[in-house]
Amino acid sequence: MCVFCEIVKGNIPGVKIYEDDLVLAILDLSQVTKGHALVMPKEHYDTLLECPKETLDRMIETAQRIAKLQMTKLHAKGFNILNNGYEAAGQSVMHAHIHVIPRYDENDAIEVHFNPSAPQDLKEVAKLYLE
Amino acid sequence: MCVFCEIVKGNIPGVKIYEDDLVLAILDLSQVTKGHALVMPKEHYDTLLECPKETLDRMIETAQRIAKLQMTKLHAKGFNILNNGYEAAGQSVMHAHIHVIPRYDENDAIEVHFNPSAPQDLKEVAKLYLE
Repeated sequence: MCVFCEIVKGNIPGVKIYEDDLVLAILDLSQVTKGHALVMPKEHYDTLLECPKETLDRMIETAQRIAKLQMTKLHAKGFNILNNGYEAAGQSVMHAHIHVIPRYDENDAIEVHFNPSAPQDLKEVAKLYLE
Repeated sequence: MCVFCEIVKGNIPGVKIYEDDLVLAILDLSQVTKGHALVMPKEHYDTLLECPKETLDRMIETAQRIAKLQMTKLHAKGFNILNNGYEAAGQSVMHAHIHVIPRYDENDAIEVHFNPSAPQDLKEVAKLYLE
């Protein structure tokens, strides 16, 4: 059973803030910050990688719409739009979803650890993509 | 002067991994993890909120394409797709961009701080969006 599919079907309650033919947006139960929302496709895809173009486009357009509301209606000072792909990246529910997290303070919510031992030769790294 | 506009124009070097008519993808100089990439529109928009639909769609499609390469060619175990909007959310260059960060280990790169004092009444929070 996929908990997000059940929310889409209405079998498990979710606090909806947006819905159309392709996507649903709800508030995350964990609320990293007040207003923290999730955008998910109505169809089941394990990760963002399986989402077809039309669905993927609608997901980011919806995330943009929600981030705008966070700035205007929730009076956020910023926002993070975040997709975690696979468990190694923090994906906890294996139904693709994008977090939209309003930010009110510079020190809450998300920390990105910059790597002090970053590879020096970026052209070598680029070859991994281009070969 | 916008450093990303200068990279787009070729006046400042960038290690490109993808380019089309609307977007450019380069390796981030800071390399949170090996292969950490940035997707940016060629036109200047301060944040993701100003990006028009066609550009926004192309940005997420490019992020998806890069994340797939991170899984297949860079042998990542996962990936994060992240947009920081405004300084309060960690945006350091005011030219919209999406980070695509391959993950090789569960404990590197990004930490999300869940909020122990999350609002209990999510329906009240939802009203902020819907009113």
